[in-house]
Amino acid sequence: MNFNYPNGKRYIPKVSETEFKGKKQSNPSYSNRGMTLEDDLNDTNEYYRERNIAVIHKKPTPVQIVKVDYPKRSAAVIKEAYFKQASTTDYNGVYKGKYIDFEAKETINTTSFPLKNFHQHQIDHMQEVVSHGGICFVILRFSKQEQVYFLQATHLLFFWERMKNGGRKSITKEEIEQNADFIPLGFRPRIDYIKIIDTLFHL
Amino acid sequence: MNFNYPNGKRYIPKVSETEFKGKKQSNPSYSNRGMTLEDDLNDTNEYYRERNIAVIHKKPTPVQIVKVDYPKRSAAVIKEAYFKQASTTDYNGVYKGKYIDFEAKETINTTSFPLKNFHQHQIDHMQEVVSHGGICFVILRFSKQEQVYFLQATHLLFFWERMKNGGRKSITKEEIEQNADFIPLGFRPRIDYIKIIDTLFHL
Repeated sequence: MNFNYPNGKRYIPKVSETEFKGKKQSNPSYSNRGMTLEDDLNDTNEYYRERNIAVIHKKPTPVQIVKVDYPKRSAAVIKEAYFKQASTTDYNGVYKGKYIDFEAKETINTTSFPLKNFHQHQIDHMQEVVSHGGICFVILRFSKQEQVYFLQATHLLFFWERMKNGGRKSITKEEIEQNADFIPLGFRPRIDYIKIIDTLFHL
Repeated sequence: MNFNYPNGKRYIPKVSETEFKGKKQSNPSYSNRGMTLEDDLNDTNEYYRERNIAVIHKKPTPVQIVKVDYPKRSAAVIKEAYFKQASTTDYNGVYKGKYIDFEAKETINTTSFPLKNFHQHQIDHMQEVVSHGGICFVILRFSKQEQVYFLQATHLLFFWERMKNGGRKSITKEEIEQNADFIPLGFRPRIDYIKIIDTLFHL
């Protein structure tokens, strides 16, 4: 079943471990398990919680509930609802008392990261978080190259502003290499962004 | 339409301003506008954001999506979904760089606050937040008396532990008066919990 989000993005159903195992893989390396960026970050956050390093959660997908049935002796069933645009970023939590806030996006592009992956509400939210002293960033993944970067929100805000002023609608790969920190993929944690936070913010 | 959440709690649809205006009120005081605790907190958080005081949001209601239709040329429609139990508290955000995290609950009881309003996942989450230096608390409302209290998570954890060890399943009103801070209701902000944070944590 295919469907699109209201923003026109195609919904890609996740392939479960079991389904995946049935498929023949030409390159069954760890980095090619068919896991999404969200899976990797959820695993990473679980690792941080288990090891008592940080408490970071993904926020639930915002849904506008229109109709709910309440069958006798069983749970309420939502019969009509719609995806809503998020007014904040997807991930937040606490690390060493500090407020942590980020968004994760991926692209199949190889030479630049399109800014259309973000929307104005998220940008406004990041601006607010930065102004209140929160640690705010984006995790950008180039899915074809399996490369993950940590870009501070202040940099993203700069490139967003450039676009608003008539500039290019993406961040070039070179700009990302210059302004962001590369996160090497690991086993556990998969995407060790806390290490980058430690370095950048001297925590 | 009435329905219950999976936890057996009845869902009370909110009365909109318009519906409310049509009803004759014996006591049309501000404190009696038919607003829920959630409405009051959303208003309060909006006020904090507008005034650039803090960035606190309510998390979306967690929903398990089972079936989605994608009609041509219109938005995806969720046709089957269920309410999930939240693994964290409902509200979080940033104030002066610090991580803020809280849950809000109300009771129609007048002499004690039942602990069944909370569940183990939320308690575990609060414990984690406290251990990572986050500012964590609950906002408790006695709806009949229109009284709102700010109780630090550490106190709630104490009363929860007492219950687990065979003690009473609620916090008495007297204990709340002794351990919590009373929040007088205002116009804007409606429930000024940041003022309490300033006092308690010397921010």
